[in-house]
Amino acid sequence: MPCETQPGVLVNHLDRGPWQRESQMLFQLLFPGAVGVIPKSVNNNVAQFLSTHKTAFNIVFPNEIDHEKVERLTVVDTNQWRRLDRMDSLRQRDNIEIAVWDHHCNGGDIDADSICQEEVGATVTLLVREMKKKGHYKVDPWSIIEEGFHPEMQEASESIFSLGNGRMGQRANFEEQYSGESLQGNYLAGVYYPDKTKFGWWKNGYPEYFAKVLNAPNWIGIDVEINGEQLDLHKSKPVNFRRELNMQQGYLERTFTIVNGSSKLHISARRFLSMKRDEIGVIRYAIYSEDFSGSISFTPFINGNVVNRDSNYNEHFWEMLETSSGKGRAHLKAKTRKSGFVSCMSMGYSLCVDEKIVGPEPEVYERNDYVANKVSVELEAGKEVVFLKYVSVLSSLNHEQESMVEEGEKLLNDAMKAGYEGLFKEHVAVWENNWAHSDIIIEGDTAAQQGIRFNIFQLNQTYTGKDERLNIGPKGFTGEKYGGSTYWDTEAYLIPFYLSTASEEVSRNLLVYRYKHLQKAIENGEKLGFNGGAALFPMVTMNGEECHNEWEITFEEIHRNGAIAYAIYNYIRYTGNSDYLGEFGLEVLIGISRFWRQRVNWSDVRGKYVMLGVTGPNEYENNVNNNWYTNRMAGWTLSYTIEALDHVMEVSPGAYDEIKERCSFDFKEETSAWKDIIENLHFPYDENKGVFLQQDGYLDKKQWMAADLDPAERPINQHWSWDRILRSCFIKQADVLQGIYTFEEEYDLDTIKKNFDFYEPRTVHESSLSPCVHSILASRIGMSEKAYEMYLRTSRLDLDDYNEEVREGLHITSMGGTWMSVVYGFGGMKVREGELSFEPRLPENWQGLSFKILYRGRTLKVNIDKSKLIIENLEGDETELLLGGSKAVLKAGGVLVAEL
Amino acid sequence: MPCETQPGVLVNHLDRGPWQRESQMLFQLLFPGAVGVIPKSVNNNVAQFLSTHKTAFNIVFPNEIDHEKVERLTVVDTNQWRRLDRMDSLRQRDNIEIAVWDHHCNGGDIDADSICQEEVGATVTLLVREMKKKGHYKVDPWSIIEEGFHPEMQEASESIFSLGNGRMGQRANFEEQYSGESLQGNYLAGVYYPDKTKFGWWKNGYPEYFAKVLNAPNWIGIDVEINGEQLDLHKSKPVNFRRELNMQQGYLERTFTIVNGSSKLHISARRFLSMKRDEIGVIRYAIYSEDFSGSISFTPFINGNVVNRDSNYNEHFWEMLETSSGKGRAHLKAKTRKSGFVSCMSMGYSLCVDEKIVGPEPEVYERNDYVANKVSVELEAGKEVVFLKYVSVLSSLNHEQESMVEEGEKLLNDAMKAGYEGLFKEHVAVWENNWAHSDIIIEGDTAAQQGIRFNIFQLNQTYTGKDERLNIGPKGFTGEKYGGSTYWDTEAYLIPFYLSTASEEVSRNLLVYRYKHLQKAIENGEKLGFNGGAALFPMVTMNGEECHNEWEITFEEIHRNGAIAYAIYNYIRYTGNSDYLGEFGLEVLIGISRFWRQRVNWSDVRGKYVMLGVTGPNEYENNVNNNWYTNRMAGWTLSYTIEALDHVMEVSPGAYDEIKERCSFDFKEETSAWKDIIENLHFPYDENKGVFLQQDGYLDKKQWMAADLDPAERPINQHWSWDRILRSCFIKQADVLQGIYTFEEEYDLDTIKKNFDFYEPRTVHESSLSPCVHSILASRIGMSEKAYEMYLRTSRLDLDDYNEEVREGLHITSMGGTWMSVVYGFGGMKVREGELSFEPRLPENWQGLSFKILYRGRTLKVNIDKSKLIIENLEGDETELLLGGSKAVLKAGGVLVAEL
Repeated sequence: MPCETQPGVLVNHLDRGPWQRESQMLFQLLFPGAVGVIPKSVNNNVAQFLSTHKTAFNIVFPNEIDHEKVERLTVVDTNQWRRLDRMDSLRQRDNIEIAVWDHHCNGGDIDADSICQEEVGATVTLLVREMKKKGHYKVDPWSIIEEGFHPEMQEASESIFSLGNGRMGQRANFEEQYSGESLQGNYLAGVYYPDKTKFGWWKNGYPEYFAKVLNAPNWIGIDVEINGEQLDLHKSKPVNFRRELNMQQGYLERTFTIVNGSSKLHISARRFLSMKRDEIGVIRYAIYSEDFSGSISFTPFINGNVVNRDSNYNEHFWEMLETSSGKGRAHLKAKTRKSGFVSCMSMGYSLCVDEKIVGPEPEVYERNDYVANKVSVELEAGKEVVFLKYVSVLSSLNHEQESMVEEGEKLLNDAMKAGYEGLFKEHVAVWENNWAHSDIIIEGDTAAQQGIRFNIFQLNQTYTGKDERLNIGPKGFTGEKYGGSTYWDTEAYLIPFYLSTASEEVSRNLLVYRYKHLQKAIENGEKLGFNGGAALFPMVTMNGEECHNEWEITFEEIHRNGAIAYAIYNYIRYTGNSDYLGEFGLEVLIGISRFWRQRVNWSDVRGKYVMLGVTGPNEYENNVNNNWYTNRMAGWTLSYTIEALDHVMEVSPGAYDEIKERCSFDFKEETSAWKDIIENLHFPYDENKGVFLQQDGYLDKKQWMAADLDPAERPINQHWSWDRILRSCFIKQADVLQGIYTFEEEYDLDTIKKNFDFYEPRTVHESSLSPCVHSILASRIGMSEKAYEMYLRTSRLDLDDYNEEVREGLHITSMGGTWMSVVYGFGGMKVREGELSFEPRLPENWQGLSFKILYRGRTLKVNIDKSKLIIENLEGDETELLLGGSKAVLKAGGVLVAEL
Repeated sequence: MPCETQPGVLVNHLDRGPWQRESQMLFQLLFPGAVGVIPKSVNNNVAQFLSTHKTAFNIVFPNEIDHEKVERLTVVDTNQWRRLDRMDSLRQRDNIEIAVWDHHCNGGDIDADSICQEEVGATVTLLVREMKKKGHYKVDPWSIIEEGFHPEMQEASESIFSLGNGRMGQRANFEEQYSGESLQGNYLAGVYYPDKTKFGWWKNGYPEYFAKVLNAPNWIGIDVEINGEQLDLHKSKPVNFRRELNMQQGYLERTFTIVNGSSKLHISARRFLSMKRDEIGVIRYAIYSEDFSGSISFTPFINGNVVNRDSNYNEHFWEMLETSSGKGRAHLKAKTRKSGFVSCMSMGYSLCVDEKIVGPEPEVYERNDYVANKVSVELEAGKEVVFLKYVSVLSSLNHEQESMVEEGEKLLNDAMKAGYEGLFKEHVAVWENNWAHSDIIIEGDTAAQQGIRFNIFQLNQTYTGKDERLNIGPKGFTGEKYGGSTYWDTEAYLIPFYLSTASEEVSRNLLVYRYKHLQKAIENGEKLGFNGGAALFPMVTMNGEECHNEWEITFEEIHRNGAIAYAIYNYIRYTGNSDYLGEFGLEVLIGISRFWRQRVNWSDVRGKYVMLGVTGPNEYENNVNNNWYTNRMAGWTLSYTIEALDHVMEVSPGAYDEIKERCSFDFKEETSAWKDIIENLHFPYDENKGVFLQQDGYLDKKQWMAADLDPAERPINQHWSWDRILRSCFIKQADVLQGIYTFEEEYDLDTIKKNFDFYEPRTVHESSLSPCVHSILASRIGMSEKAYEMYLRTSRLDLDDYNEEVREGLHITSMGGTWMSVVYGFGGMKVREGELSFEPRLPENWQGLSFKILYRGRTLKVNIDKSKLIIENLEGDETELLLGGSKAVLKAGGVLVAEL
């Protein structure tokens, strides 16, 4: 379905709305040689527009073309000849190349050489996407590459080329000055600011603060002067600009040429955040003179004068504690206001001309919030100057405030001793190991390959699983949005990825993160009026406290509690380690079950338990009653908690007794109340349609389809008022399908299909967490084109900027969903009846798919092609598997092959 | 029911929760001489508490009292002897005075001399209220009087003693310095600040700004020095402090004594904002020396360095344009940031010692944001110095910016020429005239009398009806809350008051205010996705633009549109002037009806039109479906618009044609769609209970009664999380009852009674707009005690601070509701079958009620006592009336008497 087409003549069909005009214009931007043809009978507005703009857009009427000279025809927005105005002569010719761009997928009669056809709204959507793709980010299996300098895309690229190492991360801001649009972002894991929440209208139960990830002092800065003139890429207009995010080796590199008068300088700047030493960042900034002679100076600096773009009234968050700048060394220590986190950054550098170290005397700068050195060298034609900047970045999460300067110096010295090459080598070695475990290889579809690697790369550089105090924010280290905090995304979308690609410790740390917050979750529940140890985990948190203040989310999006319970089950099911229950899990389950019990109430009129006033994962409905998904998660949690209790009582009665004591748990009273709820909980269902209803009253809404929306109004969250969104039937992410995906084993194919057919056309996928689940379910019910469409949408969400917001940061947590849609969806992997099971369904254009997974101490390699599934046991004991529903034994070191 | 009781012995009943302990303590604070007696058998917690605190609170056990010595017995929280521990000997005595304080209204056996019994939750509620009453605000028919200096009540008193004159208004801040807690507030009608709305989470459709009433430059300030020492009432501890709001004459006066060393100074400060010259304010500050000799200085100033308490990050709103200070005159001109309103304040003063004008040379102060003069005199024992400060306060709403200084000077000079006495006299004359039209006299209940006058006084000083650009904010000129903006309160609660007590012009101006905003209401509708001239008037506005940003209010509390339509009907019904329709009204009705048409949608599953996602007047439910009240208002608007169309077509076809043209109105298409909605609109109803349901699914909630709430948790909006409030069945104001009140003629008594009985016990009345409607309906169905309880709650809401928030400002708009509960409720006045009708029902303890009303050019005087209703036609033609259901003719100058 990827489209290739050519300049030529574009024609449009007769009866169209305003966006067809747009399509043509976009098209002409894509294919500058093309001439646009539009029908003569256009509506008034269009006619008026054309009277003044026709020539500017190279648009003609059908009678103005010489049909004989047309070599290529591109048809936009239809696939039927009869809808084209006066193009019949072209229909007869056979020496003409025809391309169709269309969103109507029903049969047409134009026999095209290439077709770009997708039922996604309108052609303009396809075009915009294609346009963006085209100008940007070359398709490559291992790298993200941008060619050409695009200031208008700078913020988007700053997100795309972000780097991180689990401990810190940053957007791809330039080292040199840049006076164009840029979103500065440099983030330290776990460091946040408690912004005030009491603007405007405040509601009882709101948290005391709204956590904000902080833009930390800028340590990447290197001002460059060429013959005394400041280099600013916004003014200097670089040529041959290229930047590459090398995912295999984990570095970012820019190369470009600066024309200085009549001479040229070739610059290459490479940066990485060491995966081995996670408090070290390194920059190699090289300038090769083609024919330039003159002075070059470098001013490496650390700048504490930073703000967040989203700060209110330009509030500054950092208070400077100590700045010191000497010759060749400088540091800056700063503390966040209110939250009192301290960061200490120390820098050193070295300079080579023509591979020889030089040591010019630096000028030393030191201000309250800024430290720098300035060194200058003379550069001749044919020579290269290489500037290396080393920085250690420490935070008080891991160091005592008193000794940070000293420890930072030491880390810096060690790093400089290892040298750039040494540091790079050990950094690459970590990435090699990461890829060895987590890579996915897709054959026959480079865009898909690049997409999945981009996702895996970002996940691995955002969270390394070493520190149970850390978690994963929706934007990771790539932007300010969502405050860098932890959401339910972790449990629902990331645990599966880490379970299969990293040591058990990693997922376990993510679970323990919540266990350690149990007491705060109980307090949070109390704040809202619950009692007796009922735990409501926060929707958004940095440290276990709720820190988000929209009532419909904070108070009502309580399904998060279900995801947290389910993650425990998921971990145990996958790893087989039910010890976790007695150690940590059961207490969390009891707290959550107690919450559900109090959160439902008995409805006399219905004779059922109901759950009122909730917001499901579909945040386009707020404060609804009996959200099917939330009720499903609640009922399930109660059942699983009873199972877990039985299990712990049986296998570790000592642990049970301790928990019973600690939680003042009354087995009989509590479990019997839970059982009553399990048996009598209301689940909205429509008998006629045979579908579960998202919530009470969903069918009272006007029912129409996302495909019928005016494409100019999508995404609706950028075009519609909140009011209109809430009242519409459109779904941000389909939570009934989320529930069916979660409990898939319990539903037959017909039920899955009916619900999918009902909800998918109403889903606008404006949550990054949406398409992956649809992709997986579509695979399950054999809708492989839909599965593939949804897969592309999730895996290339950021690269192709589907939701037109990548400048704000990447969708880190939904990347786990991408992984799931490959491994669970196309790979058909799941745990079924306690065994790992595979039922692969490759997209048509994929030749092969292979990936490795860690599973109960084993490393398995899975190879899927059109005809067979091969599973190798690379490491570990024999295990049973389910292949296409049949049990098979995979011996240690053995191979299983199944025909597909 | 007002309670008088005496110190003595307090006893409590046997089986009680923690609040009975509280009750006793509060009681002892109220009656310092009393000894508390509690039963011996108390629960553990109480016992533990008592072991350490019993003596501190003067509490004893029953066996510790000498029964013989008891003269008075106050029984708390029960009215039955058997629930008292060992008090039998007292039961036998007859030389003992007994008082009962209780919230149990069912029969007891204690034969008390006085009973304070109200079914409002628990006794503690009664006590807290009584305590507050006691310490404050002496009951007086014409004044609000505070005796004693109460810094802890300063902010509350600043609200209570507020002054205004329609053009400006202010809280009762002190003239002298005051370093204690104080909420500075000085407001100019129509002057606001557009604060930013984009903190945190922003939703499409939100307004560009959040309007804030501005604390304007302080012009009341007069620093006073006594022998060079600054007078600060927080430090100087005044004695014999008294302040009085004289409502008859519209002034505020404070008198107090300052002890300076061993000598005494008696100070009296009086202030008024001229009702005659609404840009003039005057202060008379007099100091009488009893035995003091020394220097006294006065520093009158205008200070532009003011902020709002609710400003974010202490933002300053005023930018100084010009300050100038000369000898005896000074002015300060300032402009609001963003909104660009200009205010210009000019001051002058004069000084008398012993009634002789003196003219000491002033020191002149001028800073960027401050102007002042300082004058000193020597004062001897037995002499009085009187300082008069005159200020003109101009705003750019009424003056050109360029000429403001000059015009302000002129107004000031004129005022000073008139002099203090002259200004005061003309000011009092306006008040005399106001009272002549709007006074209500209640015989036999001074607290109620004071309450209703306080309400009428505040309404008259907040809005004078001269300027159609102005309206009435919920807090008038008495606080920052609600931003000083216009809400639906005006149409629902204030129009009735002004219709009956002021010239037609006044209510008409309030209607025209909305007419002038029609275009903006249509734009507001478009912003939310409506079209074709559908108008959604703003929930909160300063100039027709929506300026509030809570989605559940801004987008969903759309019933306001109904109130705006209904006000047109109400105006015409009362005045008989249907010309208003053709001139202004019909266009507004069409815009609103078009909105309702688009706001409902057809539900296939129900076969009805439904209205989804609304918030009714009961703001304790958000985003509900089919709010009965909103649907009722919508359906009614559609019907009335059709009637109005017919009327205008018939009586002024020319006007109709113009409107049709201007609105592109399609009579057939639009009215037939409206009729379809009228016929098929869904109204939730419960067959079993025979009540209208507040919204779909209301009965799914756990049903319990407000009386069963723990009194310690009330008001629930200060104690419960928003989440808990939303999920509870408790109602802030009962919108079904609001609807029944609005369309009362259409419901029989049984229906009204059933709904009242269902909703009243579930209503917590935490909206100031709630009790008045309940009072009126309770009168209607003969529940006169309930009517009286609700009346007290509305009329003394602020004086008795029921909702514990009076420090934030007064509930100005609900004061119209108080008026309604007297005139519509007890007076039983309404328009029925096109005639004014009366069916009075006085509360038991009222001897008489009389009020005047303006009605279709007539002035009627209504006198009601226990046995008869007397209506005099003081001015105007003969008219028909309905008295107790029967038609009667009231001749010009005549009197009608009806037996009750």
